[in-house]
Amino acid sequence: MSQTTPQEQLRKLGITLPPAPPAVGSYVPVLRFGSFVVTSGQLPFRDGKLIAEGRVGSDVSLEQAQEAARCCVLNAIAQLQAAVGDLSRIRRIFRLDGYVHAAPGFHQHPLVLNAASELLTAIFGERGTHTRVALGVHDMPLNAPVQIALWAEAE
Amino acid sequence: MSQTTPQEQLRKLGITLPPAPPAVGSYVPVLRFGSFVVTSGQLPFRDGKLIAEGRVGSDVSLEQAQEAARCCVLNAIAQLQAAVGDLSRIRRIFRLDGYVHAAPGFHQHPLVLNAASELLTAIFGERGTHTRVALGVHDMPLNAPVQIALWAEAE
Amino acid sequence: MSQTTPQEQLRKLGITLPPAPPAVGSYVPVLRFGSFVVTSGQLPFRDGKLIAEGRVGSDVSLEQAQEAARCCVLNAIAQLQAAVGDLSRIRRIFRLDGYVHAAPGFHQHPLVLNAASELLTAIFGERGTHTRVALGVHDMPLNAPVQIALWAEAE
Repeated sequence: MSQTTPQEQLRKLGITLPPAPPAVGSYVPVLRFGSFVVTSGQLPFRDGKLIAEGRVGSDVSLEQAQEAARCCVLNAIAQLQAAVGDLSRIRRIFRLDGYVHAAPGFHQHPLVLNAASELLTAIFGERGTHTRVALGVHDMPLNAPVQIALWAEAE
Repeated sequence: MSQTTPQEQLRKLGITLPPAPPAVGSYVPVLRFGSFVVTSGQLPFRDGKLIAEGRVGSDVSLEQAQEAARCCVLNAIAQLQAAVGDLSRIRRIFRLDGYVHAAPGFHQHPLVLNAASELLTAIFGERGTHTRVALGVHDMPLNAPVQIALWAEAE
Repeated sequence: MSQTTPQEQLRKLGITLPPAPPAVGSYVPVLRFGSFVVTSGQLPFRDGKLIAEGRVGSDVSLEQAQEAARCCVLNAIAQLQAAVGDLSRIRRIFRLDGYVHAAPGFHQHPLVLNAASELLTAIFGERGTHTRVALGVHDMPLNAPVQIALWAEAE
């Protein structure tokens, strides 16, 4: 596994983590209990606004959806950081739940979510390689094109 | 955190927990293993019947869907109680997975699920504040409008 | 609980576990961390090909969907075996997440997923009785009719 920390990797990649977005309802965006950390479903918010809206394959292109997936996962990482303080405390990101708001006939969910999965691995190395469930969903809160939640184990 | 117990809160709110509904297939409605308790997806059954059927935004109004969400979460709490005996043993409800059977163009999933989230917090206080994933799903077992599953940590 | 091992049960049922399928994207098919083992969403691959494609209730019959569900769960069991070596080390399969790519108006998700649930219990006995979430999803990676993920506790 890479000896570099997630923070160093973020710097190398030229990425500044966004502030962890607030919840969009009566729940909390992230929770730590024992060695587990779980995030709520993260939408592609940047500076308080969704960077894309609608269905992937019709309103939203594959490339825009991949950018939205990266945005979701950065928000999820920001939530993990808010929960554990230092991302070096994340031992393993063990699950990514990825939901794609897909137009009828769109089946390239793996390509959309790979953008998020690859960014996780680029930042966390081996600790960021995760299991995944990918679904095409019918409708999404706030008409977002992608939603991503992470489950992690922390020190 | 409130010193009152979940049972006292239920009494104050005038709520009698329903009997934990049986599974609607070849699975179990709730499981405890170690300190975790997970429920199967709960549908809005009351006295053995769904209190609403169909899609939210067309067949089912927002208000009916919120009532269905409350019904689902009470069934889920009844499952937790069946698993741990005394709800005071629940240390934390850490995840609510909420699925809304949404009509095309319906995006107010957060409003539907807030009804369940707020009831959880009213009953469990700080221990009931949870992370959440909200999805609009295409079709639902038995044509139910809402489905909710809980993950908790118990003593 | 039955004294027979999962391997003995597989033999009695005349089932040979398939090789654990590779991931269809930038993630890993299964992960063990502490006493938990989680699989990624498994599709109905057999010999590297989906055994059915399309929506259940239109392109795919109930019987074909049940066969696909059994195929998914065998792939998931193969993943568990890849992670723990010997299936006797599985203490409990505590969650099955089941996703059915359903045609409009198809609500028999429980019947589709029962095929997977019953096979799990036939193989693992009491240790295979699990909680379940069943959803009808709008679109599925690679147009698969069913997707199943398992969460287990291992020695």
